[in-house]
Amino acid sequence: MTTAATTYDYDLFVIGGGSGGVRAGRVAASLGKKVAIAEEYRFGGTCVIRGCVPKKLFVYASQFPEHFEDAAGYGWSVGESSFDWGKLIAAKDKEIDRLEGLYRRGLENAGAEILATRAELVDAHTVRLVATGKTVTADRIVIATGGTANPHEALPGHELCITSNEAFHLETLPKSILIAGGGYIAVEFANIFHGLGVETTLIYRGKEILSRFDIDMRRGLHAAMEAKGIRIILTDVIDDVAKNPAGGLTARTKGGETLQVETVMLALGRDPHTKGLGLEAAGVKTDARGAIIVNEYSRTNVDNIYALGDVTDRVQLTPVAIHEAMCFIETEYRGNPTSPDHDLIATAVFSQPEIGTVGLSEEEAAKKFADVEVYRAEFRPMKATLSGRSERTIMKLIVNAGDRKVVGAHILGHEAGEMAQLLGITLKAGCTKDDFDRTMAVHPTASEELVTMYKPSYLLKNGERVDG
Amino acid sequence: MTTAATTYDYDLFVIGGGSGGVRAGRVAASLGKKVAIAEEYRFGGTCVIRGCVPKKLFVYASQFPEHFEDAAGYGWSVGESSFDWGKLIAAKDKEIDRLEGLYRRGLENAGAEILATRAELVDAHTVRLVATGKTVTADRIVIATGGTANPHEALPGHELCITSNEAFHLETLPKSILIAGGGYIAVEFANIFHGLGVETTLIYRGKEILSRFDIDMRRGLHAAMEAKGIRIILTDVIDDVAKNPAGGLTARTKGGETLQVETVMLALGRDPHTKGLGLEAAGVKTDARGAIIVNEYSRTNVDNIYALGDVTDRVQLTPVAIHEAMCFIETEYRGNPTSPDHDLIATAVFSQPEIGTVGLSEEEAAKKFADVEVYRAEFRPMKATLSGRSERTIMKLIVNAGDRKVVGAHILGHEAGEMAQLLGITLKAGCTKDDFDRTMAVHPTASEELVTMYKPSYLLKNGERVDG
Repeated sequence: MTTAATTYDYDLFVIGGGSGGVRAGRVAASLGKKVAIAEEYRFGGTCVIRGCVPKKLFVYASQFPEHFEDAAGYGWSVGESSFDWGKLIAAKDKEIDRLEGLYRRGLENAGAEILATRAELVDAHTVRLVATGKTVTADRIVIATGGTANPHEALPGHELCITSNEAFHLETLPKSILIAGGGYIAVEFANIFHGLGVETTLIYRGKEILSRFDIDMRRGLHAAMEAKGIRIILTDVIDDVAKNPAGGLTARTKGGETLQVETVMLALGRDPHTKGLGLEAAGVKTDARGAIIVNEYSRTNVDNIYALGDVTDRVQLTPVAIHEAMCFIETEYRGNPTSPDHDLIATAVFSQPEIGTVGLSEEEAAKKFADVEVYRAEFRPMKATLSGRSERTIMKLIVNAGDRKVVGAHILGHEAGEMAQLLGITLKAGCTKDDFDRTMAVHPTASEELVTMYKPSYLLKNGERVDG
Repeated sequence: MTTAATTYDYDLFVIGGGSGGVRAGRVAASLGKKVAIAEEYRFGGTCVIRGCVPKKLFVYASQFPEHFEDAAGYGWSVGESSFDWGKLIAAKDKEIDRLEGLYRRGLENAGAEILATRAELVDAHTVRLVATGKTVTADRIVIATGGTANPHEALPGHELCITSNEAFHLETLPKSILIAGGGYIAVEFANIFHGLGVETTLIYRGKEILSRFDIDMRRGLHAAMEAKGIRIILTDVIDDVAKNPAGGLTARTKGGETLQVETVMLALGRDPHTKGLGLEAAGVKTDARGAIIVNEYSRTNVDNIYALGDVTDRVQLTPVAIHEAMCFIETEYRGNPTSPDHDLIATAVFSQPEIGTVGLSEEEAAKKFADVEVYRAEFRPMKATLSGRSERTIMKLIVNAGDRKVVGAHILGHEAGEMAQLLGITLKAGCTKDDFDRTMAVHPTASEELVTMYKPSYLLKNGERVDG
């Protein structure tokens, strides 16, 4: 049931085999379109190959020492444990191979042609396959090349540092690591490495980690990480990195510190992956950061060229790229113009403890609404009562007093990501605080706090805190 | 600020220091009422002393062997472990003591008088304090005496068996246990004992464990328990229990089996705790099961006597008792008549895996609505990919196709209780399947399945299953 326009080799050519590109290519092919998808490395994209998936497997691995420690309070004696980094890497790689196979087979089963090559635009309808030098033409082109870790080339010694890419393939686990950055990648890896026994330091230029998150989440996670033994240096940056003649690296900071560590990891943001794509040749415009500029239907300034996912630097999340791909399919192949909905996206930081969040932070709500109610609970999780672990769960609901709607929900604690997913439904549906209050508690759970905070902890009037 | 009616010793006399009684007594006292609360044993009730709380601590304890096993797939080698039941009991008892103290202090701080005695009604306004023989009078009386484990006195040898009461205080952990019952208490303890290394058999008269739950939850948990090594005998009951001369007990079943076990535990339901309360003397009516009959405001047939919580056999859950207590306070002391809302109560079974559920089962929805959509996902949790554990998570949404409302949500898997709590908000608020579909996934989580099931797995038309 091929319906290729007679003048083009393909109905759709997708550049990039990540979450967005694979979804667009697979579904278009399943609709009978003639589709090719070019990927120069492996299918699955950042998420599967060097992001969400291997990261979460590392998180699981790094949590076991806490399980071993917690057991004592519950009557267990546990023998000595030891960790083999090579075994984890091998197990992780095997699982990633399996997932990559699923992505490939999905494309093949739908009838898409897989091209193992880098692809570059020659003009608005022509793509050069770098592996063979061949050029092919397509009616529509989707660019879904994702992003890459910022290498911070201005930093002397940056070439001695790793990014998250290399963190997934280190030959040995370092004894010590300095991680630069205060975003979720920096924070997640700091917790992973610490959990696996690495002496871990995080350095961040800002006043507190995780800018743009709710301040209670930021301070709460900071405190939890320090309590575990992770050192956090704020309002400072690395000035240069050099090899230490005695082994390892020496990092000097602007603030005057000198740190001797085995590894330095840069987690300083991710850039849209647009270099050498031939965008100029095709006339596709990018912004100052190199992100492809698209309209509300993910269409570039060139009529038949679209861009999805991280390369557009809208919201850098796997489900968003998939959603944008599905909207592209609706718009272009099902005659149902659909814009991606980027409002009220719940997210998780897989730190330890986790953060789960959706909607406005307290600070954002204070700016947006005249009357805000803040409901805040902080408590020791039940499991910690016997384990003796000194950890705190923080839960916050931000309510616009004007219409009673819950406009923000923030959780620091175990399974915060799972909770954020479901709280996302309530915010998306416009649930009010009364809907929360009407809900019976499930006991004993942590999340029952979210439906039993009947009185505001405090109020914000015109942005100023007043007593509740 | 005492406002006792001149003719009575107290404004309010509460019999029973569990969740419902303590809440009613504490809040009434804090409103300036003269309150006494009589408890013959310990404050906290079933939940704190011999239910939810120690049960969940046992669940945590019983999960550690899985953590130790799972670690290997993630690169960890763990030495031999051993378990000391006495240590767990001591740690649990210490925590329960702490919680009981909190309940007591809450009452004391609010100004309620604590009476360490059994209390019996003499007439509608008079209570006898059994410890001293003294009688006191009260304007209003709240009965919140809870429930007790059914001792199954008709069973020959029942006196050789334990119930959940004793399970929390066993001197030693048995090598083997036979648990009679198919409700949540039987199922939770079967998983706890198995996790702690006890050879565990469950026997239940019904065709499947957990009657009234969604069938997928019932079958899914059954399969998971058997896969772990718990033996489940269905459509059979114990006929008699006798001491085995060689030690332990011999249980013979109606089906003709003879089981040799160290301990037999009866988990055959809970009865309202009304015996010897003096209900006849006061003229308070009970139903055939002995439960106190109340109207929509928790008022008994005697005008000034109320009953809350398990003793009324409405919904036997801690948060429900607390809710009923708060409704009593609103109605009687705040001039705001409020009926307890028993609709759409989310609950959890702390089995392993957990069950979290709210709303209608598939079977119930099929009877109630002409057109039902069932969305069902079954998958291996991410953590199991590397641990190699053969477990499945099941998630189900039941949707009334007529108005698109989600009328049931059921989860078997890790943290299902936490998820049920938050799904409870969405059902209570009347969220539609479209609200779920509009919600962006949080990746990678388990609960993202709940917002990415775009197509029904199958439909029910007038109660009959048809293809989706």
